Amino acid sequence: MKKIAVLAGDGIGPEVMAEAIKVLDVAQKRFGFALEYRQADVGGIAIDHHGEALPKSTLAACEAADAILFGSVGGPKWEGLPPAQQPERAALLPLRKHFDLFCNFRPARVFEPLAAACPLRADIVGRGFDILVVRELTSGIYFGQPKGREGSGADERAWDTKVYRRSEIERIAHMAFQAARRRRRKLTSVDKANVLTSMVFWREIVRDVARSYPDVELNHIYIDNATMQLVRDPHQFDVLLCGNMFGDIISDEAAMLTGSMGMLASASLNGGSFGLFEPAGGSAPDIAGKNVANPLAQILSAALMLRYSLGEEEAARAIEGAVEQVLANNIRTRDIAAAGHAPVSTQGMGDAVAVAL
Amino acid sequence: MKKIAVLAGDGIGPEVMAEAIKVLDVAQKRFGFALEYRQADVGGIAIDHHGEALPKSTLAACEAADAILFGSVGGPKWEGLPPAQQPERAALLPLRKHFDLFCNFRPARVFEPLAAACPLRADIVGRGFDILVVRELTSGIYFGQPKGREGSGADERAWDTKVYRRSEIERIAHMAFQAARRRRRKLTSVDKANVLTSMVFWREIVRDVARSYPDVELNHIYIDNATMQLVRDPHQFDVLLCGNMFGDIISDEAAMLTGSMGMLASASLNGGSFGLFEPAGGSAPDIAGKNVANPLAQILSAALMLRYSLGEEEAARAIEGAVEQVLANNIRTRDIAAAGHAPVSTQGMGDAVAVAL
Ligand SMILES: CC(C)[C@H](C(=O)O)[C@@H](O)C(=O)O
Ligand SMILES: CC(C)[C@H](C(=O)O)[C@@H](O)C(=O)O
Repeated sequence: MKKIAVLAGDGIGPEVMAEAIKVLDVAQKRFGFALEYRQADVGGIAIDHHGEALPKSTLAACEAADAILFGSVGGPKWEGLPPAQQPERAALLPLRKHFDLFCNFRPARVFEPLAAACPLRADIVGRGFDILVVRELTSGIYFGQPKGREGSGADERAWDTKVYRRSEIERIAHMAFQAARRRRRKLTSVDKANVLTSMVFWREIVRDVARSYPDVELNHIYIDNATMQLVRDPHQFDVLLCGNMFGDIISDEAAMLTGSMGMLASASLNGGSFGLFEPAGGSAPDIAGKNVANPLAQILSAALMLRYSLGEEEAARAIEGAVEQVLANNIRTRDIAAAGHAPVSTQGMGDAVAVAL
Repeated sequence: MKKIAVLAGDGIGPEVMAEAIKVLDVAQKRFGFALEYRQADVGGIAIDHHGEALPKSTLAACEAADAILFGSVGGPKWEGLPPAQQPERAALLPLRKHFDLFCNFRPARVFEPLAAACPLRADIVGRGFDILVVRELTSGIYFGQPKGREGSGADERAWDTKVYRRSEIERIAHMAFQAARRRRRKLTSVDKANVLTSMVFWREIVRDVARSYPDVELNHIYIDNATMQLVRDPHQFDVLLCGNMFGDIISDEAAMLTGSMGMLASASLNGGSFGLFEPAGGSAPDIAGKNVANPLAQILSAALMLRYSLGEEEAARAIEGAVEQVLANNIRTRDIAAAGHAPVSTQGMGDAVAVAL
């Protein structure tokens, strides 16, 4: 019996989470494993109920679990709060740090049946692309010390520190090279070594780690050039290895390029089997509660959880296959609706995947 | 008599610069002003001739000038140098700092006749876009102190500091709001205020400055979301105000989205009339010396120089008009060649603009 902390959060989170659980229930029966769910508040709803975005009780539920299935957090209701208390930051950053979830996998690929939704020119989309962004998630400028603010008048200033340790770069680089081995054996490391001292260091260490993976082709690219090349020819990339901030930027750009934002899952791992699994998109407050949100990213996040945290590779593949099949049958939510086919609801999509499974 | 420091640099720099000078010569006659050019080495060629990317003699030539017309620097020959000595960094960063060129304008727009080269889907391109990225160019993490490296073994670490002063943010925000007033009166400030202390500060001050421009609509966007929105719907943006690093990233993405990289000029200003004007693209060593490079970005940079540093608005417009006309006549270099029309050479393009002028 594996324990799952279910943190549905705000906006469309609870709706899409219900569909992921529905699919996981079918998978349990078909593949003969057992999950125990423990729901806990996170984000805005946790602020409302407990006065903080990540209550101790939620942290305890996560600590007792084998994995965290995360929905999404935030919405207009909490936008007036000071930055440090806003649901996204106050929930996600401490969760990542507390569980040492240093390795964030963000796949961005074009789903064949959805290619028409891709914002790129047809001949570029035609070549297809399937990118894995590997983002360092617990260091860099997000967590670097010191940060602060002081002085007054024109001279008042505020600062953050981008800092990396050798051990931090080494471990994320190993994760990325290993992922590349399971894929097309191409790794592109994103940095700004032409300007930043921390990024000269990054590049050096990635080069060192590469010696253990002579079968993987390594390239280095500057972040500014990376944002250009992604647009011009995403097909050229396999694994993109990035620090925390650059990974945030690059993974979002890559996700949008697929045109399938509602389809993209992500995994945040601690290097062992524990992880947090969440959709790439946000809480989409504008469509929350309307039963129109696309639950596929949440369902595919559940599949990643089966793969990385629960050792249920077969079930993970079956869910991914069921999603492909449903798409091929032109069953679509509103965001990805096919011309001439009426969209299904959030629940309708969950049902369709459950049946296909 | 205005003095221009002409820093052609490496790669295609000298070729495209020759065409810009050709066009400037015609403009002088037609509009009755006089320029004196002073050529100086910069970048790789300066390393070869003088042992440094920005020799004192070059700096002196710039100091004596009313504006700097810059080509491009760097190439494979100098790639083995330590990061701090590479031509791009060792030439551009000190030039920006020395002349306090804190305000970088990077326009990114689709040239109608070239819309087919845009990497976005036809319906997105169809809406058109015309963005001005205003990038802070002399502060932020590029120049912040301390930066360094220390320790050894797994604990060895390296860091950079992202720091902004109130005065630095205020002056770039004023430049951006004033630019928005000359355009469509929409300003979007790009930050990461949900995570970074320096960017909370940035957002606060931009909001303060906005009070002086009630006629300009202000929005804030996170950098990760900005990279997505640029791809999904670039039409929504007018002026994008960014810090140094985010501006580097965003302006390159926006430039590539236009599909007209060889067409984009940029201006780096000191808030008075002095400035450095350069193409957005690089030194393109692969096509250097072949008389095929597109000189239009360099020619349009010369137009920006006339506008911002020399007060020759009429001449600037005339050059921009001549470029539009040449494009409309299907006169194209290889990079933007129209189907069924043989491309012209670098010189051929310069001649065509000169004639149109
Ligand atoms: C909400 C925010 C703190 C977060 C980040 O920047 O890491 C988000 O953008 C993400 O990418 O998961
Ligand atoms: C060459 C490099 C230092 C420079 C920068 O990052 O500013 C370049 O990318 C640019 O945008 O002008």
